[in-house]
Amino acid sequence: MSESQRLDTRLHDRKFVRTFFTSPTAVEGEEDSAKMLRSASTLRGMQAPDVWVPDNEDATAPSMRDEGVENIIEVVAENGASFPGEIHPRVVWHRDSPSTRNAGFEQMLRIADPDADAVEHIDGFVIPEVGGIDDWKKADEFITIIEDEHGLASGSLAMSVIIESGAAELAMGELRSEMGKPTNNLERLFLLVDGEVDYTKDMRAMTPTGELPPWPELRHNTSRAASAAGCIAVDGPYDDIRDEAGYNERIEANQAKGMLGIWSLTPGQVVAANKNPLPPERGEWLVTVGENAESLTERDGVQHYDGDALELTETSDGYELTVNGDSQLLDEDELTDNLLDLTAYVPSLNDIVDSMEQFEAARDAGTGAIAMERSATVVIDDVAVDLSAERMWDEATYQAAMTPVRLFQDVYANRPDQHDALVEQYGADVVKRATDVGN
Amino acid sequence: MSESQRLDTRLHDRKFVRTFFTSPTAVEGEEDSAKMLRSASTLRGMQAPDVWVPDNEDATAPSMRDEGVENIIEVVAENGASFPGEIHPRVVWHRDSPSTRNAGFEQMLRIADPDADAVEHIDGFVIPEVGGIDDWKKADEFITIIEDEHGLASGSLAMSVIIESGAAELAMGELRSEMGKPTNNLERLFLLVDGEVDYTKDMRAMTPTGELPPWPELRHNTSRAASAAGCIAVDGPYDDIRDEAGYNERIEANQAKGMLGIWSLTPGQVVAANKNPLPPERGEWLVTVGENAESLTERDGVQHYDGDALELTETSDGYELTVNGDSQLLDEDELTDNLLDLTAYVPSLNDIVDSMEQFEAARDAGTGAIAMERSATVVIDDVAVDLSAERMWDEATYQAAMTPVRLFQDVYANRPDQHDALVEQYGADVVKRATDVGN
Amino acid sequence: MSESQRLDTRLHDRKFVRTFFTSPTAVEGEEDSAKMLRSASTLRGMQAPDVWVPDNEDATAPSMRDEGVENIIEVVAENGASFPGEIHPRVVWHRDSPSTRNAGFEQMLRIADPDADAVEHIDGFVIPEVGGIDDWKKADEFITIIEDEHGLASGSLAMSVIIESGAAELAMGELRSEMGKPTNNLERLFLLVDGEVDYTKDMRAMTPTGELPPWPELRHNTSRAASAAGCIAVDGPYDDIRDEAGYNERIEANQAKGMLGIWSLTPGQVVAANKNPLPPERGEWLVTVGENAESLTERDGVQHYDGDALELTETSDGYELTVNGDSQLLDEDELTDNLLDLTAYVPSLNDIVDSMEQFEAARDAGTGAIAMERSATVVIDDVAVDLSAERMWDEATYQAAMTPVRLFQDVYANRPDQHDALVEQYGADVVKRATDVGN
Repeated sequence: MSESQRLDTRLHDRKFVRTFFTSPTAVEGEEDSAKMLRSASTLRGMQAPDVWVPDNEDATAPSMRDEGVENIIEVVAENGASFPGEIHPRVVWHRDSPSTRNAGFEQMLRIADPDADAVEHIDGFVIPEVGGIDDWKKADEFITIIEDEHGLASGSLAMSVIIESGAAELAMGELRSEMGKPTNNLERLFLLVDGEVDYTKDMRAMTPTGELPPWPELRHNTSRAASAAGCIAVDGPYDDIRDEAGYNERIEANQAKGMLGIWSLTPGQVVAANKNPLPPERGEWLVTVGENAESLTERDGVQHYDGDALELTETSDGYELTVNGDSQLLDEDELTDNLLDLTAYVPSLNDIVDSMEQFEAARDAGTGAIAMERSATVVIDDVAVDLSAERMWDEATYQAAMTPVRLFQDVYANRPDQHDALVEQYGADVVKRATDVGN
Repeated sequence: MSESQRLDTRLHDRKFVRTFFTSPTAVEGEEDSAKMLRSASTLRGMQAPDVWVPDNEDATAPSMRDEGVENIIEVVAENGASFPGEIHPRVVWHRDSPSTRNAGFEQMLRIADPDADAVEHIDGFVIPEVGGIDDWKKADEFITIIEDEHGLASGSLAMSVIIESGAAELAMGELRSEMGKPTNNLERLFLLVDGEVDYTKDMRAMTPTGELPPWPELRHNTSRAASAAGCIAVDGPYDDIRDEAGYNERIEANQAKGMLGIWSLTPGQVVAANKNPLPPERGEWLVTVGENAESLTERDGVQHYDGDALELTETSDGYELTVNGDSQLLDEDELTDNLLDLTAYVPSLNDIVDSMEQFEAARDAGTGAIAMERSATVVIDDVAVDLSAERMWDEATYQAAMTPVRLFQDVYANRPDQHDALVEQYGADVVKRATDVGN
Repeated sequence: MSESQRLDTRLHDRKFVRTFFTSPTAVEGEEDSAKMLRSASTLRGMQAPDVWVPDNEDATAPSMRDEGVENIIEVVAENGASFPGEIHPRVVWHRDSPSTRNAGFEQMLRIADPDADAVEHIDGFVIPEVGGIDDWKKADEFITIIEDEHGLASGSLAMSVIIESGAAELAMGELRSEMGKPTNNLERLFLLVDGEVDYTKDMRAMTPTGELPPWPELRHNTSRAASAAGCIAVDGPYDDIRDEAGYNERIEANQAKGMLGIWSLTPGQVVAANKNPLPPERGEWLVTVGENAESLTERDGVQHYDGDALELTETSDGYELTVNGDSQLLDEDELTDNLLDLTAYVPSLNDIVDSMEQFEAARDAGTGAIAMERSATVVIDDVAVDLSAERMWDEATYQAAMTPVRLFQDVYANRPDQHDALVEQYGADVVKRATDVGN
């Protein structure tokens, strides 16, 4: 068995998770303290998260946590069967508090009691505030005991952790060598979730406005651990829930780090986080000058540049291209080279599937590498220029291009309730080809 | 005992260090080669560092190091009792040189000799140029022997290290699991100090101008290790001693990484590094456009924007907001939303204490989360706009907001010589409330 | 023996590698499938790489790999003796595939067969797609068996690895403690090469355009591991082979991380990557405003600023300096301070050698630190200003400044075929002094 296969056999069915949605468990003083839970349990389609986390920790007042456990049991027993995503309640835990850890054990023991009729819809538990690897093992051991106590299959309950300390960040580097030891069942690990608010506190970091630091190294290390140990990396909450543009920017920055999932605090954030990682339904050309990228607009089959950063005029013997005020006289080849440097194409799902199918056909015919061409006529200030760029695809390019398609296939296989939205967005034909390609 | 408590019991009293001030030990050729040492030993208040490092390594010529040891003994015996910060001499050490390590052992043995009357004022030693964790253990073992030999309490001498090699950077990841083993006393570890000049050499890094690389990952890893192992992270020297603005920028960037201390080379840098991490005495509104942040100016209770990046005019049915030349027509709600995105508030110490007190009161009354409001009237081009932003505070927000207050409290408890400066800066009332809150 | 010496004795002679040039092994359908190999084997001088990697993995179609092995043997047996760089063929390997690993073993066994007459010119093998440290040991063990089987000296074949997985990135952190164990020969490790295409796939990272993420943390960790374990860090391929400016920018960014080598895909990239890390033959002054750096132009012994970001006029009682549109009135000292902040000097090889010689002379005369002065007359808008900056050099500065010189000396010692190019670039006198200094 290969390394990956060995990790895979110990792993959860899902390979990708886009949305990690925590909703409050119990709101004190409301007539029905399970109201928000009940509401979350009825989400469907793009409104429903891949993983739903009824939150009996920070979102529930300490005095309400017993009631929170009963609310989770009640709502999950009632609506869990029809909920389209997975359900992983968050219980209390703290590396520095044995009494909190014991309370977490009792919460899990109660929620997983088969007589309460919830556990058959529960996929696992989320453990916050873990410390070093030995602290992770304590939570794992409690879940092992719970499985045994309640007659559940060993390893059937997943364990996800929230990384909110330097110690936990370091522990992620040890996972691969700790998993598989006969004295633990850490193979149950599912999500590695960054929790930047408490992490910032633990690291004693400060910013003048109280805004969270970006923590790029933490996110890299989480993504790397997920890769090395067969888990899934998920970024923490984005506090400014009004700022959808900022949320999408964070998601894109995360994707470049291999972190394809993000915490959602509201159903609106769930929708954004479900849609963002999927390739666009229409490709587009970008012009990037400095740090600003602008989309070209297709009209009559040609790509029009409507921005201010580029100016182009024909001269008697060539072209004058002005980029942010700096002008150059260029011949046709130089112009083309310059514009190729400034432009890039964002492929649609259809484009990606096309390229993959082309490569597969070539490979089946015995060719190891083929050139993929992208061409467009770009119009700047009424001057039309034909651009054409080739990229060599070999097996490695093909494999790397497959990540968004594998994500799409994972979503399609696990979220039937999103099929209609996918067909509406991409068309039935592209959806079919995208689910077939590469298999 | 919890993880943190266990680490805490093994630890130094101070939880924060702002200033790590190295001063030359011996200057060759001067009549009184202890002159600079003597001068450093008389610093007080904001001029005095939290940790003072009489430097018998790089700042002392090799031929002067025996004399350096005697100078340290003489000055510390004489002035150590009244010095307001801690005293941690730096001795020689090198992972690649047994003779240098032995010389470091002999220097420490001599300085810590009770007959020399200095050790009662010595808090520990700084070991430069450490390698892998086994090399750290060699230094720890020497200090253990010195404590035994001289009848000092075990663990009474702290050990700080300078991270100047890739091997030492990696060793920081192992600290947590090595500390507490019966064969070492690494619990004496106090400061983890980055030494970027020698680190750059060890990493074989180059820049065209010879300027030091920024090494963001090293600083993250140092901060993380400090968090995981109960130590304190300190950044290295800032070479350009004329550039106070640059020094302050580096300190702020470090704070966002959880690195609250920095090396100072001059008494002027000590003052800057003592003051910078403390919250400001007056809050202020910032407008951030692109990478530029500008402070608003309060006049008559409203916040005036005097910069060039924003323009605002009222139109017949709304507003025209121009940001760096891009104009938008907006209604009142849209205007408010846009301005909220562009503005941020930097809270004063008083503001932070206020918020913490409000949260504590709500929590004591049984509420787990409350909304904190910040509002202001902002005037741009004579158009006044009322802004109001709410932020939800829960236990995690409260804990994260406490970092600057814990720093303040640590300073207040450990640096009586700075009480007057703090009262002068913040007022006696704020100082009292800031030392009381959260306890 | 010191740590460094112990690592050094186990190590390869080269301490620096600039160019890691992979060339296809076998192109299907060509009459002479060894044509590209043969062509690469005849490269000389700046056109020839420090390490040449005949690539029997990704650049060779799976069906052609047996023929690829025979081509390598034929070309290396014929031209290996006169090839000026080292030769390290890349064979197939995959952490997840025992059959691929066995194929890699067989390829190495065949290439290293003394009867094939190639192995005397083979310096080692490149192993792609390694996983955790135990996977590295499997490759090491095969090479150990091959050395034994073929009667080659133990440790005579180097092993380089390509880091293309999170697991391999983590393994780099363990190298130092695994090397030297009696059950492996990991001291044979030579290059740690980042392979960003497959790494991106393994990390499941995505960018909208399919462009590779920059992976700064991976590059830091590779450089750190090289430092800690006595290896050499090399960055991966730069796909856009038309973009020479981008390739040079990447090389400079890598150098600031301690990664002095880079993969080359074309002979043109080899030339750029051979030349870039060496200090320039002429020093120059830079003016940096915001993110833009512009070189000053020397005319008649003074440095002329010809850019647009700075304006300078004399006023009745001082100067008006305008930086990107912001004006300040300054007296002469303030002007000098401002311009010192905006300017920097890029030293030539000659400058660096000069400074080192000065420091050595001072050190031999018993002085531990000396001030190095740089001065220039800078002309902005016809106003001439004299600038003079001092920098203190101590042993640490001297050691750090030596990195480019050590690189130069390593090149000079190992690449006689580049002596003519170096003498032509720098002049015979500078070359002689640069090879003598510091020894």
